[in-house]
Amino acid sequence: MATPTTPPKKVVLAYSGGLDTSIILKWLQTEFGCEVVTFTADLGQGEELEPARAKALKMGIKEENIFIEDLREDFVRDYVFPMFRANAVYEGVYLLGTSIARPLIAKRQIEIAQAVGADAVCHGATGKGNDQVRFELGYYALQPDIRVIAPWRDWDFKGRSDLIKFAEEHGIPVPADKRGEAPFSVDANLLHTSSEGKALEDPAVETPDFVYQRTVSPEEAPDTPEYITIQFEKGDPVAINNEAMSPATLLTKLNEYGGKHGIGRLDLLENRFVGMKSRGMYETPGGTILLTAHRGIEQAALDKGAAHLKDELMPKYAELIYNGFWWSPEREMLQAAIDASQRYVTGEVRLKLYKGNTILVGRSSPYSLYSEKIVTFEDDRGAYDQKDAEGFIKLNALRLRLLAGRDKEAGRN
Amino acid sequence: MATPTTPPKKVVLAYSGGLDTSIILKWLQTEFGCEVVTFTADLGQGEELEPARAKALKMGIKEENIFIEDLREDFVRDYVFPMFRANAVYEGVYLLGTSIARPLIAKRQIEIAQAVGADAVCHGATGKGNDQVRFELGYYALQPDIRVIAPWRDWDFKGRSDLIKFAEEHGIPVPADKRGEAPFSVDANLLHTSSEGKALEDPAVETPDFVYQRTVSPEEAPDTPEYITIQFEKGDPVAINNEAMSPATLLTKLNEYGGKHGIGRLDLLENRFVGMKSRGMYETPGGTILLTAHRGIEQAALDKGAAHLKDELMPKYAELIYNGFWWSPEREMLQAAIDASQRYVTGEVRLKLYKGNTILVGRSSPYSLYSEKIVTFEDDRGAYDQKDAEGFIKLNALRLRLLAGRDKEAGRN
Amino acid sequence: MATPTTPPKKVVLAYSGGLDTSIILKWLQTEFGCEVVTFTADLGQGEELEPARAKALKMGIKEENIFIEDLREDFVRDYVFPMFRANAVYEGVYLLGTSIARPLIAKRQIEIAQAVGADAVCHGATGKGNDQVRFELGYYALQPDIRVIAPWRDWDFKGRSDLIKFAEEHGIPVPADKRGEAPFSVDANLLHTSSEGKALEDPAVETPDFVYQRTVSPEEAPDTPEYITIQFEKGDPVAINNEAMSPATLLTKLNEYGGKHGIGRLDLLENRFVGMKSRGMYETPGGTILLTAHRGIEQAALDKGAAHLKDELMPKYAELIYNGFWWSPEREMLQAAIDASQRYVTGEVRLKLYKGNTILVGRSSPYSLYSEKIVTFEDDRGAYDQKDAEGFIKLNALRLRLLAGRDKEAGRN
Amino acid sequence: MATPTTPPKKVVLAYSGGLDTSIILKWLQTEFGCEVVTFTADLGQGEELEPARAKALKMGIKEENIFIEDLREDFVRDYVFPMFRANAVYEGVYLLGTSIARPLIAKRQIEIAQAVGADAVCHGATGKGNDQVRFELGYYALQPDIRVIAPWRDWDFKGRSDLIKFAEEHGIPVPADKRGEAPFSVDANLLHTSSEGKALEDPAVETPDFVYQRTVSPEEAPDTPEYITIQFEKGDPVAINNEAMSPATLLTKLNEYGGKHGIGRLDLLENRFVGMKSRGMYETPGGTILLTAHRGIEQAALDKGAAHLKDELMPKYAELIYNGFWWSPEREMLQAAIDASQRYVTGEVRLKLYKGNTILVGRSSPYSLYSEKIVTFEDDRGAYDQKDAEGFIKLNALRLRLLAGRDKEAGRN
Repeated sequence: MATPTTPPKKVVLAYSGGLDTSIILKWLQTEFGCEVVTFTADLGQGEELEPARAKALKMGIKEENIFIEDLREDFVRDYVFPMFRANAVYEGVYLLGTSIARPLIAKRQIEIAQAVGADAVCHGATGKGNDQVRFELGYYALQPDIRVIAPWRDWDFKGRSDLIKFAEEHGIPVPADKRGEAPFSVDANLLHTSSEGKALEDPAVETPDFVYQRTVSPEEAPDTPEYITIQFEKGDPVAINNEAMSPATLLTKLNEYGGKHGIGRLDLLENRFVGMKSRGMYETPGGTILLTAHRGIEQAALDKGAAHLKDELMPKYAELIYNGFWWSPEREMLQAAIDASQRYVTGEVRLKLYKGNTILVGRSSPYSLYSEKIVTFEDDRGAYDQKDAEGFIKLNALRLRLLAGRDKEAGRN
Repeated sequence: MATPTTPPKKVVLAYSGGLDTSIILKWLQTEFGCEVVTFTADLGQGEELEPARAKALKMGIKEENIFIEDLREDFVRDYVFPMFRANAVYEGVYLLGTSIARPLIAKRQIEIAQAVGADAVCHGATGKGNDQVRFELGYYALQPDIRVIAPWRDWDFKGRSDLIKFAEEHGIPVPADKRGEAPFSVDANLLHTSSEGKALEDPAVETPDFVYQRTVSPEEAPDTPEYITIQFEKGDPVAINNEAMSPATLLTKLNEYGGKHGIGRLDLLENRFVGMKSRGMYETPGGTILLTAHRGIEQAALDKGAAHLKDELMPKYAELIYNGFWWSPEREMLQAAIDASQRYVTGEVRLKLYKGNTILVGRSSPYSLYSEKIVTFEDDRGAYDQKDAEGFIKLNALRLRLLAGRDKEAGRN
Repeated sequence: MATPTTPPKKVVLAYSGGLDTSIILKWLQTEFGCEVVTFTADLGQGEELEPARAKALKMGIKEENIFIEDLREDFVRDYVFPMFRANAVYEGVYLLGTSIARPLIAKRQIEIAQAVGADAVCHGATGKGNDQVRFELGYYALQPDIRVIAPWRDWDFKGRSDLIKFAEEHGIPVPADKRGEAPFSVDANLLHTSSEGKALEDPAVETPDFVYQRTVSPEEAPDTPEYITIQFEKGDPVAINNEAMSPATLLTKLNEYGGKHGIGRLDLLENRFVGMKSRGMYETPGGTILLTAHRGIEQAALDKGAAHLKDELMPKYAELIYNGFWWSPEREMLQAAIDASQRYVTGEVRLKLYKGNTILVGRSSPYSLYSEKIVTFEDDRGAYDQKDAEGFIKLNALRLRLLAGRDKEAGRN
Repeated sequence: MATPTTPPKKVVLAYSGGLDTSIILKWLQTEFGCEVVTFTADLGQGEELEPARAKALKMGIKEENIFIEDLREDFVRDYVFPMFRANAVYEGVYLLGTSIARPLIAKRQIEIAQAVGADAVCHGATGKGNDQVRFELGYYALQPDIRVIAPWRDWDFKGRSDLIKFAEEHGIPVPADKRGEAPFSVDANLLHTSSEGKALEDPAVETPDFVYQRTVSPEEAPDTPEYITIQFEKGDPVAINNEAMSPATLLTKLNEYGGKHGIGRLDLLENRFVGMKSRGMYETPGGTILLTAHRGIEQAALDKGAAHLKDELMPKYAELIYNGFWWSPEREMLQAAIDASQRYVTGEVRLKLYKGNTILVGRSSPYSLYSEKIVTFEDDRGAYDQKDAEGFIKLNALRLRLLAGRDKEAGRN
């Protein structure tokens, strides 16, 4: 596993078609003289992908070495939804929108590398962030002997101007707005858009409104609330307002609702895996609605023991995903536990969307564990014997009483 | 610890002055012929307490047996704030407003019982709820041989009409609106107001607006956002907009802000300790602001290791408080861990309040662990060596690579 | 779920054939005039079961109402082995031998009740112990509306002499040694024998040797060590010294090894679920060997992330089994996680048995994750790049350095 | 925090006086031309330290730059005992004997560096192990801008013969037995001796007896058991057989008992923090006795809630120490929780030591929570009302019954 001394022969590059990964593409060609295979995935970032093909062709990539794939359904079905079954939030609030996209990209890159016989993979993540870790842990977990190239850690460019110069020397078009420093860095997929860096680096200063890209502000949202229902089956949403939808379609629709109502903005100063704090702005409109909705249906259909165990496991599960350990045995173990709890998490929640708020106003389930007969203040006709509570309390108290007797004797009070 | 067969001689009753506890007071007198000591505490429920004195006197309670105390500062300083240091939420969302009031009431009841030489304590909680458990675990933990009287579990009244009849027979005034069934049951203190039962029992039906008592709806809240700052010292809030305040004053002020801006309503179908699901409506205006604010200052001033450990411990901590185990060694252990983390949780957060939203827009701390120098996308002049990331990733990946090699050999994929 | 007021019609009794459950059988007949169905299970307790049939017949039980079953294979395969996959120990040391037998008995009792149309089940556990909880939680979890009869909590007998008198009045033979107080109470199955109560109640006094029933003392064990190998497949033992065996046969064989070498005795002062401490003596000869063996094979074939997660989950898993929550969603969730980790826990361990010691002396696996090539002090030819360690340490240290800088500034030291 | 380009001026070296650290000492002098300060600590490794002084002097170290300190009492009192309060074991069995020594060495090295104005510290741990991490995390946590030199990662020596050649060239005496490869590597302190590497690298092969250095084998141990008592105060042992001793004296004495009776050997295939599995042989004679003893006194004097919380926290606490995070906020938080539980962990345990076995045979405490009155099978005169158990079970079963009813309806079975 030591660093190889010979150049790679064929590299699968995660290629967006943008300036930075175009520079990387060219750098791979010039630095190593290697064949480059480009992989461009649609995870719902909202950009046309075909221009990436044209650019790749223009930079001399062979037709058969250009992979452009629509992975939106895979992304939502196999990554986003399983994660939401866990009600996963990182550091109490973050819905892991960037983190959850990396395992799928890593997986497809490795699969393509195996298919085309490439000996290396390459990504465009910087050397200070979490994404480099997430990509590379994925690569290594799926292909232990793969060679990983991380240009931002390896090349000699000293700053943005060096990159621009390199681009110009190699005929890579540099958009006017990229000539100066971008005011901040953006990542997007079907689950969220994140913005960080540069203009946003002072965590004491409010994020300017122009940073947000897919939600209106609560102030600009409609003055009238909107009600929607979401239908769940076995822990996953399957329909909105009783209209069945595929996973990606459903999340897209939820994003529209959330974006319209100013839902899902987050300003976070978070702890990166690599040891520093960093400030990020996130927009997760549909995901924010989905989290409330999923907790809502669990309120009705999930047993207390299961629910509390899930709550206890969640922080570790979220941390694993954040840190890039999706492809690890412990994440799979936790997923097995979580999935085992969702069998009857089926039913409907009703939500009120209004100016930034997602308000759970009702939930019902054919498998509801709520029993009006038992909980009622009215005469329950013997469904619940209040005398039982005395014994329940007495035995729960027994150790505390023994303790109090002991402590009193010991002169604690 | 078996049930005693002789009647109690002197009972300290948690007495609100309302109809129900007045009936209990009289029932204690007639059932046991015992002396009754009333204890009425101001925890910020927003009611006059002096009428309770007049009522008690009228029912024959001796002047020296009437205890009326303003415990608002104790409540917030010694119970609410320690709990908020933990960012405690039950089942993902509930701020534990009822749960956290019970330990203090239990403690004072026991202290009064010890002071006046009473042999029993009595509360007015029903036999189906959590409060009976919380009161009684507190009693037993603080005075292991105390006798506990829980009239709702013990008496023979069959329904509300029996109670009304008993009240009338004993000259207890019955307010006109109590003659029929109350539409739901309400509990309030400085942290929150809860409403549950009866009209609210169908968890699929939206809570009618008249249930809410101390917050306007988001729709009715002002159209203009309001910004406030909260100053923290060692994990506790100490000032709003730089104006220093006592704990209870500060929470009262936050309640005003929250109430005005429609913040802190919650409709929850929760799991009770006694084994059933129940639906509650909560209003925690100031607490909701405080939770966001506390997490905000921790973002700046708390180390990742400490923050993540707190997140892992929190669900258990919240469950202990919900279940009534405030006075338990394990709650005290967790508190010791949490408190040990708050030494430098000092600084200021800035919040935007708007129509139900509490939006964290800035945080700063003299002890901030955020380093712009390290995190910057710009040249950091060697503060962080990006090459380190490669080694970090390689060793984190090592076990995954060994695993992948093994699994591949084993024919897993 | 209130207590029924009519007598049960048909009761399935967990019947051992001994004096106590014979008294219960008769008491059910005389107290309720009900039909009794006896269920006697062989879980490896080492007693003949046919005498139970004769006794039941003699007490008027109909032939078709007598169920005698050999459940040893079910017990070991479906309860003991799954539990050992978790390396479960309660309070650091107890192998849960009694706890794990109860779920199976409860399950069969309910299945028989459903088959014969019984409306109640009955067990012989006392009102102070854990077993009543384990039986009854099992009953209720498997048949929510079943009626449960717990004679020790319900009848009016005041002490042992009352019971003996009742037995004599009803022609139940009373063995001579049961006329006085038994010196202690014993429970046994294929996994363990427990002894508790009476003569053993002072936890400061060493247990007399005559208490132990299936192990020799270490002093009496052979002076020569014996080596055995155990072969595992997917987390379960399948062979000893390469001889394949069924689960019950294998555990029986391990018990012989352990019993012969004085292995598996435990003197424990434990915390019961019902709130008191109690002192128990346990002999788990085969299980003690199995725990060491299973940990041994996991050392070779289980990934660190999985192993550490298992260690973190284990105390809760063990507590659930101890408390009687085998048939709960949270135990099933944890089992799902644990089982998901065992796929490659296959291979062989070598053990040295000697005078109370089970010493792991070797482990090997076709799926071993141990790499001599990487770990070696010798030249590893690039398998591991020591330079990576620097980056690994630097980034793990980064937050600690920021913290130390902050604390120093804050004047902590 | 980037790698400095100028040589260090003054380096504090953790110096044992042995061949390897002597080579490092000389290498520092020749490589950097820097002043070297040697720090040699007595942590109970059982070697004379004064020869280290002579060697250092001979290699040109100034008198005032030689620090030789007896840290045995600090080690046991401030590191070993706090860790044993937690009953810490790594991966189920390892008592962390190496791990717990590193934080103290790191701390003293940094203190000396501060005292003498050194700009760097240096250790002799290799680049594959855990110790480099433990030392360096300690250094950085205590002095964030310290420069760390890890020769084994940095120098160009290719193997043992290069080192021997360097030693000879610089007049460093090479003991005859170090000329070939040492058969394995040894580390020792008052808590344990570890042996690993080389001859021990095959985890399937039994460790040869000559590896063990401070314990006899169980076979060679006395044929007669020996009984001892250990007295505890607030969680720490303070006396053996009622003879009060200082911490280090007490542990030394326990080591004698353990060593004599063949107690505390462990053959472990463990997971290193740096991602690989490695096989170690450990001898922890006194520590093994202490673990059993501490658990024993907790059985009597610690509440169940506290004990179970400790068991749940322990794996994480042990992992933190193993990984080198002693000087981290999260370890301190856990320590605060653990220490908060030990106030009444006072009393005496009685142990039987025999041929590898540490058998707990009795425990007593002035603060015992065990109540014979409550637990007794005999008539308890009302201390415990068995009827309470019914209510306790009924309410614990309530959610399982609702669940079973739901599942039955859903056709689960």
